[in-house]
Amino acid sequence: MTVHDTTSTLTGDQLIGAQDVPGTGEEFHAVDPRTGERLEPAYRFGGAADVARAAALAWDAFGTYRNTDQETRAAFLEGVADRIDALGAELIDRVTAETGIPEARVTGELARTTNQLRLFARVVRDGGWLGARVDPAIPDRTPLPRPDLRQRRIPLGPVAVFAASNFPLAFSVAGGDTASALAAGAPVVVKAHPAHPGTSELVGRAIRAAVAEHGLPEGTFSLLQGGRELGVALVTDPRIRAVGFTGSRQGGLALVAAAAARPVPIPVYAEMSSVNPVFLLPGALQEKAKDLGPAYVASLTTGAGQLCTSPGLVFAVEGDGLDSFVESASAALAETAAAPMLNAGIRQAYDDGIRRLAGTDAVTEVARGGDDPAIACGGRAALFVTDGDAFLADRSLQDEVFGAASIVVRVRDHAQLLRIAEALEGQLTATVHATPEDHGQAAELLPLLELIAGRVVFNGWPTGVEVGHAVVHGGPFPATSAPATTSVGTRAIERFLRPVGYQDAPAALLPAELRDGNPLGIWRRVDGELGRD
Amino acid sequence: MTVHDTTSTLTGDQLIGAQDVPGTGEEFHAVDPRTGERLEPAYRFGGAADVARAAALAWDAFGTYRNTDQETRAAFLEGVADRIDALGAELIDRVTAETGIPEARVTGELARTTNQLRLFARVVRDGGWLGARVDPAIPDRTPLPRPDLRQRRIPLGPVAVFAASNFPLAFSVAGGDTASALAAGAPVVVKAHPAHPGTSELVGRAIRAAVAEHGLPEGTFSLLQGGRELGVALVTDPRIRAVGFTGSRQGGLALVAAAAARPVPIPVYAEMSSVNPVFLLPGALQEKAKDLGPAYVASLTTGAGQLCTSPGLVFAVEGDGLDSFVESASAALAETAAAPMLNAGIRQAYDDGIRRLAGTDAVTEVARGGDDPAIACGGRAALFVTDGDAFLADRSLQDEVFGAASIVVRVRDHAQLLRIAEALEGQLTATVHATPEDHGQAAELLPLLELIAGRVVFNGWPTGVEVGHAVVHGGPFPATSAPATTSVGTRAIERFLRPVGYQDAPAALLPAELRDGNPLGIWRRVDGELGRD
Repeated sequence: MTVHDTTSTLTGDQLIGAQDVPGTGEEFHAVDPRTGERLEPAYRFGGAADVARAAALAWDAFGTYRNTDQETRAAFLEGVADRIDALGAELIDRVTAETGIPEARVTGELARTTNQLRLFARVVRDGGWLGARVDPAIPDRTPLPRPDLRQRRIPLGPVAVFAASNFPLAFSVAGGDTASALAAGAPVVVKAHPAHPGTSELVGRAIRAAVAEHGLPEGTFSLLQGGRELGVALVTDPRIRAVGFTGSRQGGLALVAAAAARPVPIPVYAEMSSVNPVFLLPGALQEKAKDLGPAYVASLTTGAGQLCTSPGLVFAVEGDGLDSFVESASAALAETAAAPMLNAGIRQAYDDGIRRLAGTDAVTEVARGGDDPAIACGGRAALFVTDGDAFLADRSLQDEVFGAASIVVRVRDHAQLLRIAEALEGQLTATVHATPEDHGQAAELLPLLELIAGRVVFNGWPTGVEVGHAVVHGGPFPATSAPATTSVGTRAIERFLRPVGYQDAPAALLPAELRDGNPLGIWRRVDGELGRD
Repeated sequence: MTVHDTTSTLTGDQLIGAQDVPGTGEEFHAVDPRTGERLEPAYRFGGAADVARAAALAWDAFGTYRNTDQETRAAFLEGVADRIDALGAELIDRVTAETGIPEARVTGELARTTNQLRLFARVVRDGGWLGARVDPAIPDRTPLPRPDLRQRRIPLGPVAVFAASNFPLAFSVAGGDTASALAAGAPVVVKAHPAHPGTSELVGRAIRAAVAEHGLPEGTFSLLQGGRELGVALVTDPRIRAVGFTGSRQGGLALVAAAAARPVPIPVYAEMSSVNPVFLLPGALQEKAKDLGPAYVASLTTGAGQLCTSPGLVFAVEGDGLDSFVESASAALAETAAAPMLNAGIRQAYDDGIRRLAGTDAVTEVARGGDDPAIACGGRAALFVTDGDAFLADRSLQDEVFGAASIVVRVRDHAQLLRIAEALEGQLTATVHATPEDHGQAAELLPLLELIAGRVVFNGWPTGVEVGHAVVHGGPFPATSAPATTSVGTRAIERFLRPVGYQDAPAALLPAELRDGNPLGIWRRVDGELGRD
């Protein structure tokens, strides 16, 4: 493995507009979770003055940035993507060092991240997000004339983005929240995740360079280093108008509460916890129980189980098929090697979660993955079994154990399976394995799963989130704090927009997207009818 | 005036699904605010058991109702409209008796209400609200095949609607919240406003009859009588999944807090307070100050000023034009007759607000409307003047006085006008009067007004909200609790929907709107491209 030395590129500073600003808090370092090695340079958390400065710059930038034309904004997003791609091996090595994520996965995540930025460039050019509507005046209507009314969407204002630890690129500094906010016309202030400050700085500098190159105001992007305290300061700054967050339930709810307590509350789009239930229907079990076991373990152990879509619960009616599934899954899981978890805190929480499950009377551990003391933050996969009655009786079995732990629930019968589906908390995903013979049962299950999940997967596994137009990466509480939204895919842009109506506006004052003759050539609803003329 | 005797039709009961359920609280009566006369029959507030029963029925109905096809749901909405229209004079008389709103306005509001239901029927048939998206599979994509992903929107669940006092039809039992929720596929539980229980019962019975006629489950609609306590019980019932509210800031925020404190929080779409600033630019003042005065007073005194879009603040740079405007407005206002306010509580709050303004040093009363002791709850219009410095120094001058009170603010110069626009709270509307010579100044003002208002009106007045596709009746906090939404117009349906994704779903299990070949013929995004094929 060639490790690029990023210590010469990295300064350990925050990026506040065009300025490099050292933090003022205690020194901290990224740690390689594979080796426990401390990585240079040192970083420090920023303080209240840094938050205020970044927010003020973002507010200053807002007036200009939100009014950039579609092409300027799209080209900027593509410029960000190009500059991140150009970091190449230097970035990939720093990510693997800071997170322990294998190079192949980092390479894939990098492609996903820059493709995502380019996808949002296309979204910006399409202009559908503007939600343009025109209801022309009807001056001779009785009893009252109808005024001319036009509507478009404008960005809410500067957005605070809280980076996640588990996707150091795709859900971090230039991840989906940042890409969709910038696409919406919102300046972004990112709070970096303290577990990968060097990755954050590299990506942040790429964004900053694109900001300058495209002639945008410096406050279009800032990057702060910080923890809970800086996060709350950021969310409560009056110039911040929306928040994107991916992380723990506790962290997300703290920001939701802080945002709700502001004199002017703002929306927090927090993606939090999900255990991603999987339902194995009888036909599927009969046909392929032995294949489903290893496939399940492969999904469960992807990223050491540290994916928000990791399958933490499997439900099936008891019988030979289920026995065979548990057997094949146990065998596959026992053969998995220990994998580095993201950091010591996550590893500790995972071990605590495993101990809690192992200590629950109605839960039986049926398999553990291999151990490897050479890995500093190594996580061992774990498989548990319980039954439907016990599951329904103990709500805590729905709590997420972040990591490669999962419970197979032996359900009494199909009626109990349906009761369980009704009793589940909100989820990012729900998965059904079904053969055509199962479609009757699946048709009963699906309406229940729609109500608890953002995405329903058939005959696959929940991990692996496609970034496109039709994907939903969201879901009812506690999966997210805003069930009507998605944090992945093109609809993510909608979180940062709101409609404004213009009544009898003089043509000279109308934005281009609402002018007569549709000069931008975008889709608009005219008198309710979609068209592009 | 022919008063139809509705006491024979009305029972004083709540309508819980198909059942008439008497309340259990203390007896109350509607009161004619013109005469102080007590109207029969007696009503009683419902209790916790009524809330639970209505919510349980709504939840039971949800599975069926949300899956009704577009035509069934559209025909039902039209059926509701027809049955309300058929009430005719009986309904109009009851509304005027319970609210003091003149018959001509009630007739207009009735037409608006039933037109709104029919508009939502057309929205349902259009199907755009389904937000259908299809990203077809790409099995041979490398490095990984792309799954088939499809997305549609489904309703959140049963919706609680809190009726407003000031629009006893258009924002009440069958108002915009109810119409858009029913259109979205959500059963509705309405908490009637205690000031017009008879109107509520009449309209509620019309909806119930349409529910039965169209073969829908009884829980599709219920009507409860109650106050704050019942309201909180309704919002915290686990089967209620969203809330529509129009009313006071205090009332709205209480529901927002109750909803946020639930184990599973839900969205509250509360339309609250707005003072609807009006900006008179120099050219407009020079050209038509004498006409603007009476037009302003006409808007201000519509509905005795009890409209959420009533113009409570006017800003203009001082000078002859403004003097002339204030003079003409004062003269017009002094000639207005007292008008019945909706009820004694609102009248009392209005008088308190007037006293507060009159007692503020920097504020001068320049005109009062006529008095009429014969009207039990008569409200007198009031016009005040202050200056820009005083306005910027005293945040309380932005507080809504619900009724026909307004302040004209003499602003020092254009720079101060812009500072004021920046300092304003969130509003439903902002209005600009400008001639072509003013367009330079208007172009500076407009970007500020977009950020604080849901609708920007040019050369008109904010009262009079057109129900269409392009209207926005919403706006930043405190105008509403959900600035990205509108409570009037076709986009109101979006409040009650959320997207769900389907990955690799077998054709047999897909909803019609997502099937290959687009059997419903609706607009869909396929691979991001809008089309109807």
